[in-house]
Formats: sequence, structure tokens, C-alpha cells
Amino acid sequence: MSKIISEFREYREKMNNRLLATENKVIKRIFNLDTNTFMDGALSSREKELMGLVASMVLRCDDCVRYHLEQCYSKGITKEQIVESFAVANLIGGTIVIPHTRRALEYWEELEKS
Amino acid sequence: MSKIISEFREYREKMNNRLLATENKVIKRIFNLDTNTFMDGALSSREKELMGLVASMVLRCDDCVRYHLEQCYSKGITKEQIVESFAVANLIGGTIVIPHTRRALEYWEELEKS
Amino acid sequence: MSKIISEFREYREKMNNRLLATENKVIKRIFNLDTNTFMDGALSSREKELMGLVASMVLRCDDCVRYHLEQCYSKGITKEQIVESFAVANLIGGTIVIPHTRRALEYWEELEKS
Amino acid sequence: MSKIISEFREYREKMNNRLLATENKVIKRIFNLDTNTFMDGALSSREKELMGLVASMVLRCDDCVRYHLEQCYSKGITKEQIVESFAVANLIGGTIVIPHTRRALEYWEELEKS
Amino acid sequence: MSKIISEFREYREKMNNRLLATENKVIKRIFNLDTNTFMDGALSSREKELMGLVASMVLRCDDCVRYHLEQCYSKGITKEQIVESFAVANLIGGTIVIPHTRRALEYWEELEKS
Amino acid sequence: MSKIISEFREYREKMNNRLLATENKVIKRIFNLDTNTFMDGALSSREKELMGLVASMVLRCDDCVRYHLEQCYSKGITKEQIVESFAVANLIGGTIVIPHTRRALEYWEELEKS
Repeated sequence: MSKIISEFREYREKMNNRLLATENKVIKRIFNLDTNTFMDGALSSREKELMGLVASMVLRCDDCVRYHLEQCYSKGITKEQIVESFAVANLIGGTIVIPHTRRALEYWEELEKS
Repeated sequence: MSKIISEFREYREKMNNRLLATENKVIKRIFNLDTNTFMDGALSSREKELMGLVASMVLRCDDCVRYHLEQCYSKGITKEQIVESFAVANLIGGTIVIPHTRRALEYWEELEKS
Repeated sequence: MSKIISEFREYREKMNNRLLATENKVIKRIFNLDTNTFMDGALSSREKELMGLVASMVLRCDDCVRYHLEQCYSKGITKEQIVESFAVANLIGGTIVIPHTRRALEYWEELEKS
Repeated sequence: MSKIISEFREYREKMNNRLLATENKVIKRIFNLDTNTFMDGALSSREKELMGLVASMVLRCDDCVRYHLEQCYSKGITKEQIVESFAVANLIGGTIVIPHTRRALEYWEELEKS
Repeated sequence: MSKIISEFREYREKMNNRLLATENKVIKRIFNLDTNTFMDGALSSREKELMGLVASMVLRCDDCVRYHLEQCYSKGITKEQIVESFAVANLIGGTIVIPHTRRALEYWEELEKS
Repeated sequence: MSKIISEFREYREKMNNRLLATENKVIKRIFNLDTNTFMDGALSSREKELMGLVASMVLRCDDCVRYHLEQCYSKGITKEQIVESFAVANLIGGTIVIPHTRRALEYWEELEKS
């Protein structure tokens, strides 16, 4: 597996565990809500992941983008669809989103290789 | 038609026309790009409008939210789907999105009445 | 009661009710979490409301600011303390926060009169 | 004078006075700094006002935009130059800036009429 | 001392010195204001540091978060209180704050070890 | 050439090429628009780069800041002028911009050495 993928996953898992180990109820519930929100409902979980991806891009959070790219990848979204999501995010969020798009594309292409 | 709908549409159209009347090429092209970006492609225009809605909500732009609500409405998206989009935006963007969600719901319900 | 206070409260309550009437579970839970997060714990609810106020100011959400001003007022926070909170928010968030501070001060002074 | 201009100026002046009347030293100094920052230096005050305008647009603060439009107007900046500033802000900040650009153009055209 | 702590402190100090060496008066005054704003007043410096922490988290600035964590630590704020601050920030700012919370918790736990 | 300069340029060029290789028309046009927007017009390209720099700083995008610093450097803008731009950005955007200013100054000083 590529180094940027494994490093992201390991740090994320390690620190999520330490966050949950603090036994703060609000944080625990936010984590649970996060799981529930993206489940199939009136909108499919695939659609919601795409929405989560674009929201993360316009808010310019690289780690959030990576997380949603992983979810999109696991749901069979194609590269062409991902790149169209990038286009939506760059149009709405402006060229300030471009550096995050560069990193997002790199991560996506690593996911495809893995 | 409801007053908040007609006022939004009229002001938006009037000022877009005045913006385009400035003959600034960059602004013209951004307006054209806006139209092209949301057309059917690898992702449907329906999916892109939902992404545009959530992006507008987390960036907390009421007028952008209204615009995408109109597009979603014209594409047959249901209220239950819209409310799930609100949920995604409120989870990712936090409770700071709630006041915008109140206004978005009001606008959507006006669209349904119209 | 002042008009800006009553209008804010009425619209907020009316639309919160309509939001909850959609029966979306995620939104319901976010509303519940909101109540729980600000309860007394390792930090007092008074301290958390001050934190909520400053967070709302730097994120520049007038309605969120109003809501936290009401909570601060009901917890006996003084005007001098509120203005020091404004100072923290304006320093961290920059002069872009000034217009929101003008509206926040107006709302606070209306609360004091009421 | 147009109503949107006079209302903006009056409310801004009234509430700035009330803010300064709180005698908070940090807020006073931020107001002083604001005056000093935009004075002629290695960059002209005209250039700094243009920078302030674009910063206000990408941060999407309508009142800040209005303030800098007034400063730009008083320094003899032309409409064509203002519209090019709008273009820079819309490119960098994305289409989320468009609604603010509509209101900015309206305000500028009112300034020209006044 | 842990590497992430010493690297943060050294780079911060080195570059703050170089910034102040530019002899720009506005930047100097902003640095002075920063010191004054967080001093004891109507609110305690401890309370203001907690407000600064939450503001930095919702604005998602890792270095600002680290700085305020250091201040909170030196003022005897407990881990349980810090984690409640994280909860407030994640609720208000949304899940987009989670990656910053992971890094904040790591930094705090390093401070406790040091 | 300094390592932070060469690494920035290489990664930026490599990933821009891969982005353009996706053949997404919207992204291509945004890249073209980016070039056109900053050309001489009613405002000089030098003025627009300064505006782009301040916009990037208040939006807190380090890579965008680096890009505009390079453009400013190539147009003969002096260090004193750059530092005044930093001052404008820190005033408007607040102390949350300071960490980005530290990195911006470091990058600028590397450009001067190169």
C-alpha cells in the first residue's frame, strides 16, 4: 500500500481511538452521528459521500477529503466522477481549492494503484 | 408566488444583468462556467445540484442555497432528500449551519407551495 | 420587548419546530447534542457559553451570536465581560468581525433594556 | 443620497460610537490600527484599499465590502477597476462570492449616482 | 521534550523574530495587542485562553490551537476541561474540526508528558 | 535554489499536469481563467498579484500565498511592500493569519536569496 495512504489511515485510527478513550460523551455521539448520517436513506450513501467530498473540498480540509475519497472509492465511484466533483468544488469554492485538488488527485490515484 | 421567492429571483436577475453589462470577460466566463459545470456528465446534473446545495450550506451563503434549492426543486428532488442534504451539511459544517438551515427550509417549503 | 429580540426568537422557534417536524433523526440528534454540550461539566455552562459566543463571532454567524448572547445574559455575564469577549473575537478573527460586533452590541444592549 | 448608502453609514457610525463608548482598550486599538494600516507607506493607500476590498469579498462580509467601496470611490478608483477587483475576488473565492458581488455592484452604482 | 513541541516552539520563535525584525509598525502592534488581550480583566486570562482555543479550532488553525493549548496547560487547565473545549468546537464547527482535534489531542498529551 | 522553493514548484507542476491530463473541461477553463484574470487591464497585473496575495492570506492557503509571492517577486515588488501586504492581511483576517505570515515571510526570504 502507498505510504500516504497507510500513514493517513494509521494516524487517523490511532488518534480517533485516543479521542474516544477520553470518554467524552459529546465527541462519542458526534462520531456515531457521522456513521449514521452517511447511511442509505432518501439519498443513497454513495450520493452522500459525493456531497461529503465536495463539502470537505470547499471547506479545504485535506484529511476530510481523503476520508471521503476512500469512501467514494469503496463505493465504486469512477475517476471521471471524482474529477467532476473536483470541478464543482473548484467552481463554487474558487481557485483557493486548487492546491487541495492537487493533493486529492494524488491520493485518489494512489487508491487506484493500491 | 411567495414574496421571498419573487424578491430573490428579481434581485438576482436584475443584478446579474447589471454585472454582465459591465462587459468584464472574467466575470462572463465564470457565469458561463457555472452553467457548464452543472450539466449532465459522468455525474448527473441532479447529483451535482445536491453537491452544490451542500457546498453552499457549509460555506453558509443563503443566496447560493436558495439558488440550488430552486435547481433541486426543478429536478424533482423530494423534501425528504433535501432534508437529508441539510443533515449532511449540519454534521460536516456544525451547528453554525443551523440558522441557514432554518432559512433554507422556509424557502423550500415556499417552493413547494408555489 | 424590543423588536429585534422578539423577531429573532419567534422566527428561530417557528423554524426550529418546522425543522424538527421533518422527523430527520440526524437533525434531531444534533439539536439534542447542542443542549447537552453546553451543560455543566468539567467546564461550567457559563464558560461554555462564552466559548460559544466567541466561536460564533469568529465564524461570523449573527444568529448564532444572538443565541449565545441570550444564554450569556441569562447566566448573569456582565456587559464588561461580553465586551472583552468581543475583543478576543476581533483580535483573533480580525476586523472582518467588526460589523458583526456592531450588531452583537446592539442586541446585547436591547437584552439589558428588556 | 441613496437610502442604502445613508442607512449603512448611519448605522455604522452609531454603533461604532457605542462600541468605543464601552472603553475597551483592545477594541479602541484595533480601530486605531485600522486607520493606520491603510495609510500611504511602501504601498499607497489606494492600493491597500483595493486589497482590502478583495479581502472583504473573498471573506464575504457585505458591510466590509461597502466600507472599502466607499474608500475606493473617494480615492478616484474607476468602475472598470472595481469590476476587475470583483473578477479577482470571484476567481479566487469562487461562485460563492457572486451574491456579494451583486450587492457590491449595486452599492458602487449608488455611490456613482450620489 | 517531545519533538513536535520543540519544533513548533523553535520555528514559531525564529519566525516571529524575523517578522518583528521587518520593523512594520502594524505587525508590531498586533503582536502587542495579542499579549494585552489575553491578560486578566473582567474575564480571567484562563477563561480567555479557553475562548482562544475554541476560536482557533473552529477556524481550523493547527498552530493557533497549539499555542493556546500551551497557554491553557501553563494555567493549569485539566485534560477533562480541554476535551470539553474540543467538544464545543466540534459541535459548533462540525466534523470538519475532527482532524484538527486529533492533532490537538496529540499535542496536549505531549505537553502532559513533558 | 532553496529546498522549500524547489519542492513547492515541482509538486505544483507535477500535479497540475496530472489534473489537466484528466481532460476535465471545467478544470481546464478555470486554469485558463486564472491566467487571464491576472493580466494587465484597468488594473495592472502587479496590483492584481498584491490583491491575490492578500486574498490568499486571509483565506489562509499557504500554497496560494507561495504562488502569489512568486508572482510578486517576479514583478519587482519590494520586501517592504510585501510586509505591508502582510499587515493588511493580519489586520483584516486577524491573528489567525499569523502562522501563515510566518511561513510566507520564510518563503519570501528564500526567494530573495535564490
